[in-house]
Amino acid sequence: MARTGRRPGNQDTREEILAAARQAFAERGYDGASIRQIATGAGVDPALVHHYFGTKDDLFLAALQVPIDPAKLLPEVLAPGPDGIGERLVRMFLGIWDSPVGTTAAAVLRSALSHDWSARMVRDFLTTQILRRVTKALDLDPKEAPLRTSLVASQTGGLALVRYIVRIEPLASAPAETVVAAVGPTVQRYLTGPLQ
Amino acid sequence: MARTGRRPGNQDTREEILAAARQAFAERGYDGASIRQIATGAGVDPALVHHYFGTKDDLFLAALQVPIDPAKLLPEVLAPGPDGIGERLVRMFLGIWDSPVGTTAAAVLRSALSHDWSARMVRDFLTTQILRRVTKALDLDPKEAPLRTSLVASQTGGLALVRYIVRIEPLASAPAETVVAAVGPTVQRYLTGPLQ
Repeated sequence: MARTGRRPGNQDTREEILAAARQAFAERGYDGASIRQIATGAGVDPALVHHYFGTKDDLFLAALQVPIDPAKLLPEVLAPGPDGIGERLVRMFLGIWDSPVGTTAAAVLRSALSHDWSARMVRDFLTTQILRRVTKALDLDPKEAPLRTSLVASQTGGLALVRYIVRIEPLASAPAETVVAAVGPTVQRYLTGPLQ
Repeated sequence: MARTGRRPGNQDTREEILAAARQAFAERGYDGASIRQIATGAGVDPALVHHYFGTKDDLFLAALQVPIDPAKLLPEVLAPGPDGIGERLVRMFLGIWDSPVGTTAAAVLRSALSHDWSARMVRDFLTTQILRRVTKALDLDPKEAPLRTSLVASQTGGLALVRYIVRIEPLASAPAETVVAAVGPTVQRYLTGPLQ
């Protein structure tokens, strides 16, 4: 626990913990994996995992090399409530993907599509770090929430696909506000409108 | 041209043509590649390329190993015109992806996301084989059509991503008609509704 180890040794330990975390999240999913199991896999004390990486959420983001923290970004967008949430979510999404962080995000998404285990981690990332938070903050009906938020994932995931990876014009180069105006109402309806 | 060559030789020639076609489509795009260049690349006469593979569209689908022919599937869906086109397109899309053909489609999409050249071919496939046909059949305003159809690609591409590859529930297992009811209106608005 103490910060007395030599630097290279600490770096190795961090990498071993991350490797054990990736394996655990890939095999058991986010909900099934535990800090205790990950610590055992890395041959360290669970307290050291917390010391290096914080909460299970933090470790999950570090293992996936996700360059953003939804726990910090989402509350501001969700706080004003359901009115206009579609446009605010799409605007935040574009702000992240249009920034240098988007390059990393594109690499993660590409990887997710070529490896099954990684697809599972992306699914868990979206579900536990984003969709559940949206459900809770907007107080969505628990019966409808999973379909509503998975529909939001389909539209925003497809936007990432077409704008940043497959790059179909003019969507690939359209100004953010053009995209917000076009896609915001879709996300709004998926979250708060009629689906039948 | 004559079918007198030995079988193995013919098979090799077909493969050489397909390899030359993939290279040409990847480097020059669908519009930039020509049957003549592809024939030169494969060391055969252009007439032989037509003999084996038919039109440039047919050769493109063969090179990408696309298991469907949009030229045959789309007209029936597009013929009734703009009313209800959103639901009809989503229903056709799910019919293909929910069938055994969907497994191949998922493999193509996965590959498209891990290789840049393949992403270009997927972009060209969507643009030339599907989106242009939708634009023409629905007589969309040429100024708006590219944005409208690329938005349709974002929603349907994202649906493929979430339902068949990342597999987020309940969208991954929802009955087709539930998805048609939820996503059909989105595609309808992207094609015929206000975008601002």
